[in-house]
Formats: sequence, C-alpha cells, structure tokens
Amino acid sequence: MKSDIQIAQEAYIEPIQSIAGSLGLDVEDWEPYGHYKAKLSDHLLDKLADRPTGKVVLVTAITPTPAGEGKSTVTVGLGQAMNQLDKKTVIALREPSLGPTMGIKGGAAGGGYSQVLPMEDINLHFTGDIHAITTANNALSAFIDNHIHQGNPLHIDPRRVGWKRVVDLNDRALREVVVGLGGPVKGVPREDGFNISVASEIMAILCLAKDMKDLKKRLSSIVFGYTYDQQPVTVHDLGMEGALTLLLKDALKPNLVQTIENTPAIIHGGPFANIAHGCNSVMATNIAAKLGDYVITEAGFGADLGAEKFLDIKTRAGEFEPDAVVIVATIRALKMHGGVEKDNLEEENVEALQLGVDNLQKHMETIASFGLPYVIALNRFPSDSEQEIKAVTSWCENQGASIALTEVFAKGGQGGLDLARKVVNTVNTKPKHFHHMYKLEDSIEEKISAIATKVYGASGVSFSAQAKKQIKQYEALGWGNLPICMAKTQYSLSDDPTLLGRPKDFTITIREITPSIGAGFLVALTGDVMTMPGLPKQPAALKMDVDEQGNAVGLF
Amino acid sequence: MKSDIQIAQEAYIEPIQSIAGSLGLDVEDWEPYGHYKAKLSDHLLDKLADRPTGKVVLVTAITPTPAGEGKSTVTVGLGQAMNQLDKKTVIALREPSLGPTMGIKGGAAGGGYSQVLPMEDINLHFTGDIHAITTANNALSAFIDNHIHQGNPLHIDPRRVGWKRVVDLNDRALREVVVGLGGPVKGVPREDGFNISVASEIMAILCLAKDMKDLKKRLSSIVFGYTYDQQPVTVHDLGMEGALTLLLKDALKPNLVQTIENTPAIIHGGPFANIAHGCNSVMATNIAAKLGDYVITEAGFGADLGAEKFLDIKTRAGEFEPDAVVIVATIRALKMHGGVEKDNLEEENVEALQLGVDNLQKHMETIASFGLPYVIALNRFPSDSEQEIKAVTSWCENQGASIALTEVFAKGGQGGLDLARKVVNTVNTKPKHFHHMYKLEDSIEEKISAIATKVYGASGVSFSAQAKKQIKQYEALGWGNLPICMAKTQYSLSDDPTLLGRPKDFTITIREITPSIGAGFLVALTGDVMTMPGLPKQPAALKMDVDEQGNAVGLF
Repeated sequence: MKSDIQIAQEAYIEPIQSIAGSLGLDVEDWEPYGHYKAKLSDHLLDKLADRPTGKVVLVTAITPTPAGEGKSTVTVGLGQAMNQLDKKTVIALREPSLGPTMGIKGGAAGGGYSQVLPMEDINLHFTGDIHAITTANNALSAFIDNHIHQGNPLHIDPRRVGWKRVVDLNDRALREVVVGLGGPVKGVPREDGFNISVASEIMAILCLAKDMKDLKKRLSSIVFGYTYDQQPVTVHDLGMEGALTLLLKDALKPNLVQTIENTPAIIHGGPFANIAHGCNSVMATNIAAKLGDYVITEAGFGADLGAEKFLDIKTRAGEFEPDAVVIVATIRALKMHGGVEKDNLEEENVEALQLGVDNLQKHMETIASFGLPYVIALNRFPSDSEQEIKAVTSWCENQGASIALTEVFAKGGQGGLDLARKVVNTVNTKPKHFHHMYKLEDSIEEKISAIATKVYGASGVSFSAQAKKQIKQYEALGWGNLPICMAKTQYSLSDDPTLLGRPKDFTITIREITPSIGAGFLVALTGDVMTMPGLPKQPAALKMDVDEQGNAVGLF
Repeated sequence: MKSDIQIAQEAYIEPIQSIAGSLGLDVEDWEPYGHYKAKLSDHLLDKLADRPTGKVVLVTAITPTPAGEGKSTVTVGLGQAMNQLDKKTVIALREPSLGPTMGIKGGAAGGGYSQVLPMEDINLHFTGDIHAITTANNALSAFIDNHIHQGNPLHIDPRRVGWKRVVDLNDRALREVVVGLGGPVKGVPREDGFNISVASEIMAILCLAKDMKDLKKRLSSIVFGYTYDQQPVTVHDLGMEGALTLLLKDALKPNLVQTIENTPAIIHGGPFANIAHGCNSVMATNIAAKLGDYVITEAGFGADLGAEKFLDIKTRAGEFEPDAVVIVATIRALKMHGGVEKDNLEEENVEALQLGVDNLQKHMETIASFGLPYVIALNRFPSDSEQEIKAVTSWCENQGASIALTEVFAKGGQGGLDLARKVVNTVNTKPKHFHHMYKLEDSIEEKISAIATKVYGASGVSFSAQAKKQIKQYEALGWGNLPICMAKTQYSLSDDPTLLGRPKDFTITIREITPSIGAGFLVALTGDVMTMPGLPKQPAALKMDVDEQGNAVGLF
C-alpha cells in the first residue's frame, strides 16, 4: 500500500486557475499562492449574493478512539463521489495545526485516495493564516504588557489578564510561565501561559466573522482582562482593533485548493473541537454554498463536540441551516467502544461490536434531536469482516437508519457512491426541522445543562465555586445571552476520557468559564482539558525531511 | 507631500510575471504569491551557473541618528537610476521585521518615489518567511523541553540551554521568563527568554545557506545547549534537522518583487545589523548577480555594523566579492554628529556640519581599509541649505572622494542619475583590492580586536571574565576559526550609544560570546545591547487600520 504522501505526490493536480474557472470565478475573485493554492476575495459573498444557496451537509463522527475514524477522509471522499454523480459539490474543511502534525498526526488532509492537495503545503505553513493569527494574538499580548509597563493608564490588573500568548506547536513547557522577569527594563512580572494558536479567540473570531467589518467589530470587543476594580478591558480600550484587523486582512480570505480527484475544496480556519469550536470558517462554508449545489463540510471529533458547536454556534454566526448530517463510524472504533483493546482490533468480534454501537446510537439520537436527517457512513478498513459489516448494517436498518459502506480511502470517490446517493436522497426527501439545542435567552446554567444532558447524556452538571462566581459576574456584565463553547475531552461522551461507549449516570463538572466576547461565546472548561497539547516521546517530526529533489518526506 | 503608502497605492505595478519575464525567467523558475510577489526556485542558481556574474554594489551609511539617513531609499533609488541608464540592475534587500514596523518605524520598504511594492505586503506577512523561521526556532525549543521532560536521554542541562524562543514582535516582557511551571505535567522549570525572530540563529542560517543541502547541514550543527558534563548538544543529536529543513523549505526560496519604477527587487532574509549579521540572503544576492549586470544591495545601520559583517561574514559564506560601496550620508545626520539637537536640525549650521563629517570620514576609511572603492551619496532633505550642501561636497572633493547629491525620495530614479553614473564609473575604473578585516586563523581575541580598533576606532578591547572563559571553552571545542558577529549599538561607533561623531580613546567591552555554530560565527555581545526590542509608549501600530475597501492604512 502506498503512503498518503506518495499517493499525493503521484496524483494529477490541476493548476488552481482551472479549479477557479470550473467554479465560474473571475480573475478578480482570487489570487494565486503558488500554482495550486489560491486565496478567494473577501468580497466574493457580496458579489454572489443573488445566486441560489447550495445544500449544506455536515460530516461528524462517533466518539474518536485510537483506532481512527477517518472523518476528513470521508468528507473528501464524499465530495468526490458527489461530483462523480454530477452533483456540483464544494468541500469546506479546516486548516491543520502544525502542533499535532509535528507531534502525533504527521498530517491532516484526508488520506489515501481521498486527500486534499497539495497536502505538503496544507500540512505545513499553507497560506500563512495560522501564522497571522499567532502574530495578532501575540501582538495583543505585547501591547497589553507594554501598556502596563508604560504607566498603565487603563489600570489593567496584571493578575487578571486572561489573554494568553500562543504558538502553533505542541509545547507543554509553555503551559504556565512567568513573564516580565529581570528588572525594570524587562517589563512587569506576571503569571502567563501559552495556548496552541488554534485555541486562540482570534482563530474563533476569524472563523465566525462574516466579513472584514464584522472581523474588526469582533476583534474590537475582545475582553483581554480586568482593571484593578474588576471592570473588563477590551481591545478597543487599547485602540488596537485597526492593527489587529490589518494583521488579519489576508488571513480572512478563504483558501481554494482541490482534492486528488480535482474536486474544489475551500480550507479555511482550524480551531480544535475539544478546546475550541471546531469548525472551518463561516466565510468558507457560505462561499462554498454559493459556488456549489452541495457543500460537504466537517466539524471536529465526535458529534458531542464539533457537531454540537457547529449547530449551536456556527450556524448562528453564519446565519444558515444545514440540510443533512453524515455520521462516520468504523468497525474498529465501535469494537473499542465495546471493550476491545487496541492490539486486538484485527480479530473479528461481533459481540463487542454489538456493545459498541451504543456510542453510535447516542450520536444518532443527538443529531435527530437537533431536528436533522442523517446518514451513517461505515468507513471500511481492511480488517473488517463480512460478519461485522453485516452486524452493523443490520443494526442500523433495524433502527430505520440509512447506512452506507464507504471505501473512499482505497478507492476515492468511487468508494463513496452509495453514501453520496443516500446523502442526496436524504437531503431531498427527508424532513428537516432544525433547531438549536438551547435558546440564547436561557441562563448560562440552563444552556450548559442542555448540552450536558441532551448531547452528552449526563445526569447532571456540577459547577465549581469558581464557575458559579463567574456565571454571576458574566450575567452582571451582560454576557448571559451568549452561546456556550464546551471544552471537553474528545475521547468520551463524558468529561472522563477513560469512559468509552455510552457512559451513563455521570455528571459533568464545570471547572471554569472564560469569556470570548469577540468570538461571541463563553467557554465552559470541564475536567482537566488542556489548551496546550504536549509532544509524545517520539514526535512524528523526527521522521520528517526534505529529499534531494526538494520534496517533503514524512508527512502522512 | 503624499505619504509613502499613498504613493505606493497610486503607483503602476506590473504583474509579477512581467517582471519575471523581463529577467528571462521561465515558468518553472518561479511561483506566484498573489499577483505581485513570486518565490524563485531554489534550483535557479544551478540553472544559471554558466551565466556571467554581475557587479555587486553594497550600500551602507554613516552612523544612524534619529534624523534619518534613508539607506533603503537610496538603495532602491540607485537601482531605479541604473535602469534608467540602461544598466540591467537587480536590487537585493532584507525583509522587514514586524517588530519595528508595529513599534516605531511603521514600515521599511524604502520611501517616497523609491519604494519596493507591494509595500503593504512586504511590511506585513510578505510570503511568510519570517513566520517559518519563528516556527522552526520555537519547534526546536519545544523539542528540547520535551526531550528533557521525557527522561532526558541526552543529559541536557536545563540550566545550560542557550537556545531561546522567538517572536517577530517587540515584546520586552518576554526578555526573561521562566517556563515549565505548574507541576509534572507542565514540563521541567527553567529560565528562558525570547529574542526577536530576526535575531534568531535560524534567520542567519537561512541568509547564509547556499542551497537546501547547505541549509540542512547548518541546521544540523546548531549547538543549542550543553550536557551536564558541559559537552555541546546539537540539533543532529536531537534528530531534528530534517523537520527543521522541511519547515524552512519554502522560506529558503528568494522573493521577487519590483520597485515603484518596476525595477526587479529580490527581498529575502532580514537579520538586524546590531544584534545579528544584517544582510539579505546569500541566495538573493547571488541570484541577483546572475540576473543583472549590477546588483545593488544594502547592509543594515552604519558601515561599522552591516557593512563589516557583509564583508567579513556574508562574502565568505556566499563566496563572492563586492565591486564598490556607496556610503549614504545626510546633512541632518552629519549635523547631529556635529552636536546639533534633533529639534534644531532645520536651521543651517555649517560649523556643526564640518565637525560631523568626522563620522563620515571614519566610515570612508573603513571601506578603504577593506580595499574597496566607494562613492558617497548625499541624500537630500528639503531643509538642506545650498551652503551646507556645498560644504559637504567641497570637503569630499578635498579628500579626493567621489560624492553625488541624490534626490531619490522626491524624484525616484531620476534623482539618482548622478549617483548611478559615479557608481558605474567607480566599478569600472577604480582599483579594487578586497580583503577581509581579519583572517579566520587569527585567535578570537585578535579577530574582535581587529574589528574594534580598525573598524570602530577603539583604542582597545576589554573582555569580561565570562567572555575570557568562553573564548577558552570555544577554542577547546574547535570553534576558534569562525568569523565574529559583533552585537553592538548602532547609534555610535563605540559601544556607548550616547557618543556621536567619531569617538576617540574608548575601549570596547565584550560582555559575553555566544556560539552560532549553524550560522557559522561567534556572536560577541558588547555593552547592554538587547536581542529583544521593546515597544514605545505610543506604538506605530495604533495608527494602523484597514479601510472600507480593504486597503492597508497607517504603514509608512
């Protein structure tokens, strides 16, 4: 079997002007970044306003396990399959973060014959969007510390600066730091910490902004800390919204690339789904919906995380409704949810599978409870036995659920034709009654409880003393009507990463709630979820290199 | 008078393929980054090896003052003037760092009618080279800390990690930090600090590498710290040279842009000249010399800093010789060197001017002592009086020196025709006996003394106890034959920034010497020069914005 990077490097890639041309874009609508990437104009949505809006299909998944699900691969493969059926389809994806790429993943651009190209660029610096976000985030930090150092006219309390610096790397040693050491010419000492860039509020803002004006407005209202008398201080108070907008003006433009079958893909914005809202940008999805009759887009991790935030946060900011959902499952992962150890996944185990489908069932119920029709994509792996496939398929059919076996990794779009047909059928014939999981007018506790009980299946929510105090404070400050962005482990429906399957009789503990006023949500932190990952003992980057011809090696 | 950004935005800019075409480049030699920027192939030098090599003209300056000299403006203007004289000329410049742009400068791409375009892009993220350097630098830091955290098989002494993290911002609060706080899951605590990215050894490596192979070799030999038994530890020991090369593979490709008069300019690499070696990349200069009959390139700050490092470090790494030097001076700056306060610079003061030329004279002697012919460019400002201009001109003529009045800011290339003619004449008729200021075989003390006494005019050098110890250590480690990169204030020929003009009877104090084994030099730190600038009370960024049409505002 060829590696992803081999397949990618052997693929026929169209010049990006051909892809832009196939979408009917004019010369002024895009700018090239190399021969195979382009940035789309941020004015494109205005220009296309009168076009009909395509159907939006969200791809989500069961709770991820180390066995792998292939959600991005299915998203890409489904997009390719739709085009094989002559359904004009555009894919919308997130940009990968360098942290996981260099740490464990080695890359995140689909896999096998369902990849986006050029995978090397997409997995490395791409068009620089995340670097621009890192820079804007850290420029704000520098300006905050400079303000304090230069006499502090805004009376910012150095103990209450919630704004952290960022790097787009996995770097545990930066989780907690002290800055400003070394005496009077080296700033004012205070505790600080670094998040990974994709967890930055600026990433969320970029992804939720409708246009440049909205971007600036959101940046302006970032609350980065509090004064000595505990009043919030904003970017606008610091006078820095113009500079931050300038630093982000090109990053706001969505990136156009293509898949290995030359299906157009817009890749833009990349927040993690455990510690952030987990969806590509609103601009990318909305532009894709104007350029295609169908948009295939994904949200990170399981339906409890990415999909919930897609449906409760992104659809509100982007003012759109999805039309159908695809839930990706694999037999390997379902077996792990049914109790099988990772080393025994190659063995047929129908019994474990029948236990593990509990996890799938919960996510199906969740999507149904949002009022959305769905199709299950069973993403085939070579070790899956016929008995196992039959077990899952029959179970789904007994539930009245539509299921399609996909082989998009090995076969590209050809391996997703059944899924594509079922998606088209679902979008066009199944009833849709989309609604959010909570109302914005609900109290903060009610909103968190709705997510915990209805989406995670918890029996209740326990708020720490700190969280309770913060809720009161935020309500007093007028932030009570914002949606909630949960920060929770991706490995369990609960906040305990060791509880696989469909945990029952558990409570969710809210440790802390932090305001992302620019992004327009409150982040509720559960368990000990960290906003800066660490590197493993043998990071993936140790296998990376450049060969004699200048080609990337070791990305996968 | 129009602002720089107004002039830039009103200029006629050619599509970058026209500029590439005018240089005889084929389609495979470059990639577009937007419509007006391109990256040149890193294989271009091999391809052009048989072409004749153009003449290299280095632009340097007197000791800078707050009055401004306009070295980049003269460099751009001279390149434009050369092309007006039908001399096929390519300009090679450094990329600006965001730190000073957002801090004080507001931009660094020439000025008036002698600018490089698109100035907004060049002053912001450009093609992402500096972001790639920042990322590679900080990835190494993360891998060092991860190695220590994961059991530390290389026995790295956390107290002896010399490798610092970087941001491309002015951020004094990051000068001294403690990382790894917060307990066992948050790494091993140690003292650390951040430099500005353009002072990173990786920036120096990128600028001195001849090709991808050389880049990897240099990255591999970076010494980032020492073991508990004080043996040096390298990037190769960590197995990380492949990943770092991969992160830098596109940054290694020089960037092609154009001036306001559509003269080709290659802008690549941007180390500061006070704390780093201050020159654009070897690849940019060498490619420019294959594409043009003349290359006009600059080195940062006064001839004591950028030019000395250009002549002693860059020419060795790039294996080339310059053919002539331009020394930029202004009447305003010479008056400051003669004792006039900044507020009184508008007043005619021939007497102060006659004192101030001492500074110019020292730099003329320095260039002559490298065996190079030179021309003085007197960069005209509106406040200069005829008497003052005459005084400087006569003084130069009495010295037998060639001087040209330039008005390239106000008039573009047309204002630099006299300078261009004198440069062409100098290159083609004046004798050249280029040699370095010291031999590599000289001892470390001898090399530093040669620079201090012959280039700065010091009476001697005083080495701190720490520096003496380091010299012994480095000689024992086999690093005694490397060239020296001095870190010294740019505001004085001495290491005391308050001593203007031509200071006499001073000694240079070497506080510390740090090894940049990958870059291939030892950095000698004098005085209290800092490798991370701070922001002023009212940073330039507070005036930056994006207008309704999406254009940059507040860059200058």
